[in-house]
Amino acid sequence: MEIDLKEYIKSIPDFPKEGIMYRDIQPLLADNAVFNYAIRNMIYGLKKIPEYFVGIEARGFIFASAMSVLSGAGFKMIRKAGKLPPNNLNSIEYGLEYGRDEMQIEKGSGQIVLVDDIYATGGTMAAAEILAETSGYEVIQKVCLLDIGLIKKHDIECQIYY
Amino acid sequence: MEIDLKEYIKSIPDFPKEGIMYRDIQPLLADNAVFNYAIRNMIYGLKKIPEYFVGIEARGFIFASAMSVLSGAGFKMIRKAGKLPPNNLNSIEYGLEYGRDEMQIEKGSGQIVLVDDIYATGGTMAAAEILAETSGYEVIQKVCLLDIGLIKKHDIECQIYY
Repeated sequence: MEIDLKEYIKSIPDFPKEGIMYRDIQPLLADNAVFNYAIRNMIYGLKKIPEYFVGIEARGFIFASAMSVLSGAGFKMIRKAGKLPPNNLNSIEYGLEYGRDEMQIEKGSGQIVLVDDIYATGGTMAAAEILAETSGYEVIQKVCLLDIGLIKKHDIECQIYY
Repeated sequence: MEIDLKEYIKSIPDFPKEGIMYRDIQPLLADNAVFNYAIRNMIYGLKKIPEYFVGIEARGFIFASAMSVLSGAGFKMIRKAGKLPPNNLNSIEYGLEYGRDEMQIEKGSGQIVLVDDIYATGGTMAAAEILAETSGYEVIQKVCLLDIGLIKKHDIECQIYY
């Protein structure tokens, strides 16, 4: 059976700022059959199982963690600045759809897949890739649940295209 | 085989503030065998599988999501204020080990298990329970990975006791 994941995502206009269309994935997460289906699709779309799934804070954690326990790979975090302990840390500043932010990862090594929930302008994912590569990791793939299609040219694999 | 989860948690003194002992769970998450073991223990410790696992932002998401996909229950989020879309939302202000904060959940119903990574003073978990109960849910259990034992009298089930 194929599940149309779009039916489980609500669009909320003007949140968190006027002119922004927020995609609410709560209905998808709340229905375990749909959530599991989404996660398994994200795993099946991988070229290979990496050493680590790296979730981008905060909702990227949800998908990376689920992919990790279902596929046997480790889990790592990219967090907003100030959340990870300072030893052995690397940082990047980047532009968001609304504003600027800074994120961090613990330096390390190994093949990783970067995971986030929503792909909008690609700013976060592109910055995450630079951050990970300059921190010692090899980014073999970038995946997300949902592509809201603000920019069409990218190599991110997402389950849903608007 | 029993795994001593404590060996996979690093203690970092004076982070994020002087006098605070930060518990770094990154080594536990990075090792899939250990992470899976922790999640399965958290599931086995449940009285029953709830309708939803509710993760408390941000690291609670990691454990609630993994418990959700491995047990067949849905996943919901308690988020910091301003992150969830405003319709049908409930809020609570609460005191932290360091400072004050506000968190929110979408109103709903059903039996839930609240999930977080670390149990310190119990302030976050206690506030999460009040928030969830006043939002329509029935909290049947509260679980976390790690109890750092700042207050000993509570009914939270954690895997590790310091």
